[in-house]
Amino acid sequence: MKSLFTSAAVLVLATTAFAADPAPADLRASALEIFKPLPSTTPAVTNNPITPDKIALGKALFFDPRISASGVFSCNSCHNLGTGGDDNLETSIGHGWQKGPRNSPTVFNAVFNSAQFWDGRADDLAAQAKGPVQAGVEMANTPDQVVATLKSMPDYVTWFKASFPGEEDPVTFDNFAKAIEAFEATLITPAPFDAFLNGDDNAMTADQQKGLALFIDKGCSSCHAGINLGGEGYFPFGLIEKPGADVLPENDKGRFAVTATADDSYVFRAAPLRNVAMTAPYFHSGKVWDLKQAVGIMGVSQLGEDINDAEADLIVAFLGALTGKFPEVTYPILPAETGTTPRPSGEVIAK
Amino acid sequence: MKSLFTSAAVLVLATTAFAADPAPADLRASALEIFKPLPSTTPAVTNNPITPDKIALGKALFFDPRISASGVFSCNSCHNLGTGGDDNLETSIGHGWQKGPRNSPTVFNAVFNSAQFWDGRADDLAAQAKGPVQAGVEMANTPDQVVATLKSMPDYVTWFKASFPGEEDPVTFDNFAKAIEAFEATLITPAPFDAFLNGDDNAMTADQQKGLALFIDKGCSSCHAGINLGGEGYFPFGLIEKPGADVLPENDKGRFAVTATADDSYVFRAAPLRNVAMTAPYFHSGKVWDLKQAVGIMGVSQLGEDINDAEADLIVAFLGALTGKFPEVTYPILPAETGTTPRPSGEVIAK
Repeated sequence: MKSLFTSAAVLVLATTAFAADPAPADLRASALEIFKPLPSTTPAVTNNPITPDKIALGKALFFDPRISASGVFSCNSCHNLGTGGDDNLETSIGHGWQKGPRNSPTVFNAVFNSAQFWDGRADDLAAQAKGPVQAGVEMANTPDQVVATLKSMPDYVTWFKASFPGEEDPVTFDNFAKAIEAFEATLITPAPFDAFLNGDDNAMTADQQKGLALFIDKGCSSCHAGINLGGEGYFPFGLIEKPGADVLPENDKGRFAVTATADDSYVFRAAPLRNVAMTAPYFHSGKVWDLKQAVGIMGVSQLGEDINDAEADLIVAFLGALTGKFPEVTYPILPAETGTTPRPSGEVIAK
Repeated sequence: MKSLFTSAAVLVLATTAFAADPAPADLRASALEIFKPLPSTTPAVTNNPITPDKIALGKALFFDPRISASGVFSCNSCHNLGTGGDDNLETSIGHGWQKGPRNSPTVFNAVFNSAQFWDGRADDLAAQAKGPVQAGVEMANTPDQVVATLKSMPDYVTWFKASFPGEEDPVTFDNFAKAIEAFEATLITPAPFDAFLNGDDNAMTADQQKGLALFIDKGCSSCHAGINLGGEGYFPFGLIEKPGADVLPENDKGRFAVTATADDSYVFRAAPLRNVAMTAPYFHSGKVWDLKQAVGIMGVSQLGEDINDAEADLIVAFLGALTGKFPEVTYPILPAETGTTPRPSGEVIAK
């Protein structure tokens, strides 16, 4: 698991100062030192060859509510492909109407994050996929029960065999996660920003280009860099000034829970910003619904910078250029249960 | 609202006796007196011209969880297009993790039912669509809040204008329901049974044809008739012999709640049977998971007929011929919330 956060790195906030309105070519040159456009093809994933069969299986699993103990929630419930890949809630509602601890991150382009979850506790999407399935406040299921559910439906068994050829017993929780990872790797949303990086001067409006220049100038891109403008490194929320407990609740210490290192108190993975205009509310706490307000909070807390109203508007305009074209997904027809399919249960088991 | 149930009608259970294995042409001729194949086009709907714009809007609304107060449930949550148009639960789980009173019926081909809900309390799909939105145990929302939500998103306003041309203020709860009705009218699933009715002798297996003959012979088709093999008339559950309280809970008197007529105690709309093999569990109580067992219960309770094991297998084989081809539905990309969109609330308000 990469950790780009070091005490040294924090101090080196990039401050390339642009002239008021840089020429598109200059702006692009600077941007390409910091960001990368999306590739035109599905990225390769470590130890998980992506095939059409596996993508199709992963899509079925992603949309199948029978993966949850109650039969109510699918992956798509909290990572809704129709609403920016998240659920538009402060924090997700799960099994037994329990509220999850953190805001649901978008699944779109998540394959490009160097680690998953707000605290980076999963190395990749396959590891991530196993989490919510077992979390008591989310799907409240067990690996054994998921496998029993899938094995009870002959179509699923056939699909796993086709997706994992040569394996004697392909219906496993690991392969379940790999199939979901394969599908999620296809969820890529090329945006005007990519077209601009790829050479189209007109792909972003003048305001969006000014916003990009400001995004670099002010130092936002020190943390929100790379292909996903974030999702790569870990930084303390409140690097310069801690936001109020409404936005940064005291009881969630972020990456500290993963590393048990004091330096990681209130450290989170910098949020990836693609499609951010579609994924309110913001921050791990989901307490801020307005993107401009979120930009202002970031300025004060992370940069010690009072971003003025006009600047915030331009940065928000630029962030709008990160809203991409969503892939067309045909809703999957799922296999019917059989006599051996475990029955759904909404019962909440006290711990 | 039509009501085909009368004391007289109940006594006239059709008992056309077939020779052991009727020729396909004879079987088809008898079947066509009772059933109708699905049409090849989207049916017209009363007072609601169906246009491509309206279908697209209805699809977005059908999949939009922001129609519920909590932001958790969409129409598709309980009428999942991937699992036969229902939710595979005994009774649905809704707002605040409350359990609904009855099993969720399939949305596929529902446009052909003469009335909606198990007790037929809605005349059409537009009237039906308004129910769950407002039910406290389902979406727990209000018409005003739905309209405010839709008006807060400019794309929805544009889509309503295109769908209801000439209307000054097209974003209304009525039009919301009409758009959903338009989309649902496209959810039609032509099945091997239709191909058989349309003249293809080989569309159903020999066993499925025997099962169809039995379905008519035994009298099942007295109630399960018409284009949806049900969904047209009202009949007492337990016409001949009341099933146990596990299957027919005493506190749900069915259509009695609609008509307040003693004769309507424990009267329900005969379930439409298309795709029944995909929509376990069965009956309004959702207490029976096995289709063969459901056939047996119907035989005893409705027909006073002990359907033997071999006969039940054949009838189940026939019911499998009602599993149709599901329409290809592209998952909709929904508009993003704005500053004026009412915020989701999972709060449960005590009555």
